[in-house]
Amino acid sequence: MILIHNFNAGPSILPEEVYQQASRAILNLNETGVSLLSIGHRTPEFVSILEEARSLVRELMELDDEHEVLFLHGGASMQFMQVPANLLAKHGVAAIADTGVWSTKAIREAEVFGKVEVVCSSKDTNYNYIPKDFAVPNDAAYLHITTNNTIYGTQWKEIPDTGLPLVADMSSDILSRKINFNRFALIYAGAQKNIGAAGVTLVVVNRRILGKIKRKIPTLLDYRNHIREQSLLSTPPVFAVYVAMLTLRWLKNNGGVAEMEKRNREKAAMLYKAIDEMPLFRAHVAAEDRSDMNVCFSMADKQLEPKFLQYCTENDIYGIAGHRLAGAFRASLYNALPRESVEHLIKVMKAFSAQFG
Amino acid sequence: MILIHNFNAGPSILPEEVYQQASRAILNLNETGVSLLSIGHRTPEFVSILEEARSLVRELMELDDEHEVLFLHGGASMQFMQVPANLLAKHGVAAIADTGVWSTKAIREAEVFGKVEVVCSSKDTNYNYIPKDFAVPNDAAYLHITTNNTIYGTQWKEIPDTGLPLVADMSSDILSRKINFNRFALIYAGAQKNIGAAGVTLVVVNRRILGKIKRKIPTLLDYRNHIREQSLLSTPPVFAVYVAMLTLRWLKNNGGVAEMEKRNREKAAMLYKAIDEMPLFRAHVAAEDRSDMNVCFSMADKQLEPKFLQYCTENDIYGIAGHRLAGAFRASLYNALPRESVEHLIKVMKAFSAQFG
Repeated sequence: MILIHNFNAGPSILPEEVYQQASRAILNLNETGVSLLSIGHRTPEFVSILEEARSLVRELMELDDEHEVLFLHGGASMQFMQVPANLLAKHGVAAIADTGVWSTKAIREAEVFGKVEVVCSSKDTNYNYIPKDFAVPNDAAYLHITTNNTIYGTQWKEIPDTGLPLVADMSSDILSRKINFNRFALIYAGAQKNIGAAGVTLVVVNRRILGKIKRKIPTLLDYRNHIREQSLLSTPPVFAVYVAMLTLRWLKNNGGVAEMEKRNREKAAMLYKAIDEMPLFRAHVAAEDRSDMNVCFSMADKQLEPKFLQYCTENDIYGIAGHRLAGAFRASLYNALPRESVEHLIKVMKAFSAQFG
Repeated sequence: MILIHNFNAGPSILPEEVYQQASRAILNLNETGVSLLSIGHRTPEFVSILEEARSLVRELMELDDEHEVLFLHGGASMQFMQVPANLLAKHGVAAIADTGVWSTKAIREAEVFGKVEVVCSSKDTNYNYIPKDFAVPNDAAYLHITTNNTIYGTQWKEIPDTGLPLVADMSSDILSRKINFNRFALIYAGAQKNIGAAGVTLVVVNRRILGKIKRKIPTLLDYRNHIREQSLLSTPPVFAVYVAMLTLRWLKNNGGVAEMEKRNREKAAMLYKAIDEMPLFRAHVAAEDRSDMNVCFSMADKQLEPKFLQYCTENDIYGIAGHRLAGAFRASLYNALPRESVEHLIKVMKAFSAQFG
């Protein structure tokens, strides 16, 4: 029985069995008598957890041999700087698509290391669409995109093919849909949406993109060191890696990425349809760019919004308030969010409409 | 009843009540019905956890108003580079005391950003003492020391007073003894010894040391941004911050730093005395520099070492093997390690001596 319907944008809901297993491991990891929090990170127990997590990523993303899987400290925000530190020479150019706040942060950090060309932007309409036609400088080191924009509810449905090495912040839609992940030179994703709990970041990097610039890179920022040390360059965030492993295991046991895509499409389609049908609610994102992960909507009558939020809380709906920069509402429908929660939300929206519409 | 005596050097033992509370919070945080892993990091629930953790640090360390308390991503290894990125100008000098592997890493990262003068070293005797008399360049930006050397079992009993701003890696002895923490310009410590679980790093920094160099610092590396955003510059490692808060709360409820120091001294004295009295075992660290946190010892007859390790395992002693660079044995006696575990270890050493001595 679901007690609370958790639509949080991240940190967000995880599968129930992940909570149960993580909770138990803190008391006693695999009947070793030792807590997960108190095992050495170079013990066979932890190394096998880390290896399972890395190998599940490889399997679920169907990665080729050129791509390396790393679990790193620091969140996706660290990658905003770590990517250009490794890939952008002082006089090089990073081509970056500006589709929201997170892209803007990626732009700002890249500017610390080299030059940036913002190749397109949807800022003019508060980021409610994904730019389609844009040119890139041929000599750019890479093109950076944010595949899903959590705050505004937009998603790149087509991954652009520009000939440039492709770098993607996939924090909020990784492992949610089938993509040819091998097309990317580098992918990064904070764990706290589809991978696990906050405190670890997944990086998938094509080895061949590394080592091309001359900058002295601090040890902990150089991806090559993490590859060499197999994500054990320094003490890893043990607990967050364990939760990621459990979540990836759940994902595999539930049909993998293809099945997640199917479920996510159904959940999102159901909710967008309900919004479009109810005069009280409206979605602002261009229909073809609507995110399957974050469904943003507002109300025709702004004054009803606090009342609806209150109504949601009374009906066990949690985490539905929009981001402070976008306002109104946002329902995040990550892999672990059950279909029942979406059905419940629609029921509540309908009941509210009947009462106040 | 203690099932396993966990002498791990880190990640290491935590108080039993911390395991219990963390385990429960993963299922249901404070009866909210939501898992700790799935709450937003800007919710009142998490903000109050973070604020309690920061305020406990302030209280336990008796910090003055110039010192800021930050919980950051990345482990102490990130600080090896973050410290010079913030404090060391390109042509500036960092004075660094070399007392082991971790100091060596701090030296290497500082060299990426500026110049380093190694002001003393105990490398000549495999780091089994703390250098006492050394000169520092007057114009150095700071003096960096590693207050406790986990691998070799040495500890600075006197904090040097050179007139230079003092930076300390306190990863393995923070909050274990009374020190005037306000004397330090900057203190950092990975959480996984005395503060909590791996995945978060405590930084205590005197505001007045910041902003003195001209380098463009990436957003996430600039301490000033973390101070401004109160450790919420990016999604924090929520779980690791929670475990730190619980551990700090336990520390306060158990008499604070003064009481920890008393207990730690007793535990260490008891074990060193036993080692010195038993002909089978020997401690190599200069008596006046022996760490109260990590007691390193070996055996007179090297060939007995694997046998003693096996004997420990059979007697529920865990994590006693020395670091791969030091070999032999190491018993880590952090705050949360009960006196009973030390008594048990001594009993086991005596029984082994009786049988094989």
